[in-house]
Amino acid sequence: MSSLRPTLDFLLYDWLQAERLNGRARFADHSRETFDAVLDTCERIAREKYAPFNRLIDTEEPRFDGEKVILPQATHEAHRAYVASGMVSAAQDYEEGGMQLPYTIEAAAGTFFGTASVSMGSSLLTKGNANLLMVHGTEMQKAVFARNEFGGRFTGTMCLSEPQAGSSLSDIVTRATPDGGDFEADPLGARYRLKGNKMWISAGEHELAENIIHLVLAKIPGPDGKLVPGTRGISLFIVPKKLVDSDGRLTGERNDVALAGLNHKLGWRGTTNTLLNFGEGKFPVRGGAGAIGYLVGKPGEGLRCMFHMMNEARIGIGMAATSLGLAGYYASLAYAKDRPQGRPVGPAGKDPAQPQVRIIEHADIKRMLLAQKSYCEGALALLLYCARLVDEQHTGTPEAADEARLLLEVLTPVAKSWPSEFCLEANSLAIQVHGGYGYTRDFPVEQYWRDNRLNMIHEGTHGIQAADLLGRKVVMEGGKGLALLAGRINATIEKAIQRPDLSEHANALGQALQKVGAATKSAWATGNPSDALANAVPYMQAFGHLVIAWTWLDVLLALPAGSTRSADEGRVRATRYFFHYELPKIPAWLRAVETRDPTCATMPEEAF
Amino acid sequence: MSSLRPTLDFLLYDWLQAERLNGRARFADHSRETFDAVLDTCERIAREKYAPFNRLIDTEEPRFDGEKVILPQATHEAHRAYVASGMVSAAQDYEEGGMQLPYTIEAAAGTFFGTASVSMGSSLLTKGNANLLMVHGTEMQKAVFARNEFGGRFTGTMCLSEPQAGSSLSDIVTRATPDGGDFEADPLGARYRLKGNKMWISAGEHELAENIIHLVLAKIPGPDGKLVPGTRGISLFIVPKKLVDSDGRLTGERNDVALAGLNHKLGWRGTTNTLLNFGEGKFPVRGGAGAIGYLVGKPGEGLRCMFHMMNEARIGIGMAATSLGLAGYYASLAYAKDRPQGRPVGPAGKDPAQPQVRIIEHADIKRMLLAQKSYCEGALALLLYCARLVDEQHTGTPEAADEARLLLEVLTPVAKSWPSEFCLEANSLAIQVHGGYGYTRDFPVEQYWRDNRLNMIHEGTHGIQAADLLGRKVVMEGGKGLALLAGRINATIEKAIQRPDLSEHANALGQALQKVGAATKSAWATGNPSDALANAVPYMQAFGHLVIAWTWLDVLLALPAGSTRSADEGRVRATRYFFHYELPKIPAWLRAVETRDPTCATMPEEAF
Repeated sequence: MSSLRPTLDFLLYDWLQAERLNGRARFADHSRETFDAVLDTCERIAREKYAPFNRLIDTEEPRFDGEKVILPQATHEAHRAYVASGMVSAAQDYEEGGMQLPYTIEAAAGTFFGTASVSMGSSLLTKGNANLLMVHGTEMQKAVFARNEFGGRFTGTMCLSEPQAGSSLSDIVTRATPDGGDFEADPLGARYRLKGNKMWISAGEHELAENIIHLVLAKIPGPDGKLVPGTRGISLFIVPKKLVDSDGRLTGERNDVALAGLNHKLGWRGTTNTLLNFGEGKFPVRGGAGAIGYLVGKPGEGLRCMFHMMNEARIGIGMAATSLGLAGYYASLAYAKDRPQGRPVGPAGKDPAQPQVRIIEHADIKRMLLAQKSYCEGALALLLYCARLVDEQHTGTPEAADEARLLLEVLTPVAKSWPSEFCLEANSLAIQVHGGYGYTRDFPVEQYWRDNRLNMIHEGTHGIQAADLLGRKVVMEGGKGLALLAGRINATIEKAIQRPDLSEHANALGQALQKVGAATKSAWATGNPSDALANAVPYMQAFGHLVIAWTWLDVLLALPAGSTRSADEGRVRATRYFFHYELPKIPAWLRAVETRDPTCATMPEEAF
Repeated sequence: MSSLRPTLDFLLYDWLQAERLNGRARFADHSRETFDAVLDTCERIAREKYAPFNRLIDTEEPRFDGEKVILPQATHEAHRAYVASGMVSAAQDYEEGGMQLPYTIEAAAGTFFGTASVSMGSSLLTKGNANLLMVHGTEMQKAVFARNEFGGRFTGTMCLSEPQAGSSLSDIVTRATPDGGDFEADPLGARYRLKGNKMWISAGEHELAENIIHLVLAKIPGPDGKLVPGTRGISLFIVPKKLVDSDGRLTGERNDVALAGLNHKLGWRGTTNTLLNFGEGKFPVRGGAGAIGYLVGKPGEGLRCMFHMMNEARIGIGMAATSLGLAGYYASLAYAKDRPQGRPVGPAGKDPAQPQVRIIEHADIKRMLLAQKSYCEGALALLLYCARLVDEQHTGTPEAADEARLLLEVLTPVAKSWPSEFCLEANSLAIQVHGGYGYTRDFPVEQYWRDNRLNMIHEGTHGIQAADLLGRKVVMEGGKGLALLAGRINATIEKAIQRPDLSEHANALGQALQKVGAATKSAWATGNPSDALANAVPYMQAFGHLVIAWTWLDVLLALPAGSTRSADEGRVRATRYFFHYELPKIPAWLRAVETRDPTCATMPEEAF
């Protein structure tokens, strides 16, 4: 993990100039020193409490003893250390007990946990859950639920999917009915009884904290007793595992939320992934049927509230994928510097009496290392850029905040999907660098690869992200978001083109931008969404490559003129790798998009 | 597995016209009926004895109880059924107890086992081992070792790698010294004592058969007691786990071959993968030090003998990778036909009161299924073509046999590497089609993906295959192999270009061929191997895509004119997918090759 800190420092301070955030009122007390103190603390906790146990949590998968879910002791200790550091509430207001830390720094600090042991968790969902309540909850809901989540007493989940409704949330059938005539009088919020099953619920059951606060999407039946079809009918509820009073104290009553099963996954095994039954009578509560839940926001606005949380979660998944990619890069780099095998190509390597060289001296090993560096550091830069946009959205001038919002709309699907695909590929290369050792469980890289395979699925699959990007984000508000992004990319090009060492890249980026723009138009030329979206994933792959190429070129503009530092040479090389080996893939992906190729969409089922 | 048989039938009979092989004297007794009987038998054994236990062998990994390696009972039963079917010796002469089955049919039959449970094994190494002895062994070695392997009494291994020498075989240090003054008089072959450690030995220890016959590469020290550096010093030895007499009976003596460790892998867990110690004194034998081994062939010719076995093994690995890809394709196709989720894009899908559609109706799911079909059936076709070349090499006219040999030289690295990369990608798509269910161990696809990850490494890594292809095969004999392949590709183009429905593909293939040819020249333009080979892997990726595109186009030429069969429509679509979505990637890979891009090769170590 030796290279992560200097990489973060460079991206945060030399490139994004994060220390300037203290010019904003919210961050006025901060400085590079306070930021560094946070990074130091997280780096230390991750090194001491997370990294040593990453293999343990893979082999000692969560299990249910009939009453409780058993997690390794190390997971409890890591969670305690994380909570004690104050990181759960770091971004919150001082008056909430937070430290008003910029999200940029919080996101950067998160990579220490992600590289050390991604599935031990860093309270991503708890933070998202509590943040949602801070925006959409009542004062009482904030005080009772959100604050106790920030304080570490409670953890949080998000319960969207159901066994029959994964990507298609409009088809959920969890039902919420008013709980008695006085249901609206409950100080914790209008009280409902929920019945239904929720699938893929991360951290849905465990003993890490006093209580688990589920945020649950459910439908309130209409007067005819039927559920409203579609997403309009969806409302949002707080469903605590154990009931609490209006001071946040446990009442001693278990709510009717029961673990129906643990999903046994190929990776990411440190976190439980559960099927939960709500209101099926396992734990009857207060003499009624159904789990007790409290409405958040207005009926029918559940999905809108939840989307607030999902965008944050998506950036978090991108960061997790990137962290795993970086972990594999560092592991394979260390291995390549250590492992002797073979001799140089050509005359110099012909003498077998000479000792073997370390594999980092072979061109193909360097290629695989440079590809990893280029993918993972590029993704890291993009995600920090997005995090910086989040801070801009919250603390910038109205105009800058709106631009940041729009850019985030366009960039979020890329920030979630690109790392989940290409940092997974990086993990595969990390295995390959290790040769046979890479596929054994004696080395960490195979676990990174397995852990990373979830990221292309959870929090919205690749297909969902691609439909979001091409179907909504690049066309919304008259294409304003895309135009804004193009403006930023062009600004980078204009600077780079004046530099003899960067003008070739600048031209290549300009052509790629032009090509992606034209493909966007061609995709929509018939105005028919099924034509446009038939090749949405290849579009997103090309779009992502454009964005990462832009990010790298922009990063290079931050290098000191005439730098002779090795790290800067590394950045120049990683950029060159991306422009020479990766950017040329864009036309291949866009070919199908431009032509609205119907080969797949019109494939008859019986022909498979 | 419902679609495998008709696919094999089409490729074998409609495309490769395998039944014409009975025009050759060796296969004169055969007919489509006898071939079909073999396929029927293998399909049944795979369905009954392999497929039901594929998850079991993943969860009940081989373990060592201190004395023996324990494998699940199911593995023993599968092995017995396979041996009883006569498939181990199917390709051997009648007088050897074989059925003189063409390799083409044997390879096709192997896919049933590969799709059912790849790591339960189908005696790939035993066959390769025994085949090698049939070519390079003495009459006694054939009788005692090879025949008992073909008969199922013994199994075989190949022991090449050592902990310090994986890809770099010239660096092995296992030492073989003459065993006494009469060492040359042993009827089983010149007798040596071996000392050393062998790593990654598949099926290196188990109780499936009476004995295990190790084929071991080792060096005979020179008069100065030193090992000859490089591959020139390597010799080949038969080292049985248990000693046998010249009638093949066990003498009751355990040879000094000891299990030093089982490798714990991320996949392919049905087969042991071992570290073996030879001659370290665990089982002292006949009062001397070292494991007893019998020389095969001449001293110093070990690698040449072993290469005979490695090419076969490499085609076998390509077939295993392809089988895993197909297994994932069939599983995800069945899932997609069954799983309702979401609604069509566009106006038709706007009404949430309508029931959900099955996911196979979504364009992006079709894309992922068609990609799998295109990769895996394309790879299957190539591998059967290679198998047909093996038969040609053995039974064709001298001219045809030599052409087949040369084509195999060029195609073997592709046949090994391309499926291991792209059928792995197919397995990832199979997971993706399943959504969250895909990453759980309740569905088979995550195991296919893990099992397949070994194939890019064992039997020569991707890097080794690429160096073999660009560094040796396309330039050997003055580029004759490449020219021959180009001739075959051009012959396909010439036929296809006359067909209005195929002329577009034919033109695209012609351009790709031209581009690969030009890149080959550019790579070698300086004559410097380190320039040429710096981008050997991207070259191999492009080359592989060219070969698969050619294979698909040639397959289409075998369709009956005006066919309206769904299966043929599927082949047309899979080809179109490959030409529209995959072939355009070639220029991106070749860019670095053509320019001999030094970005990776000259990357300074400290800049990573």
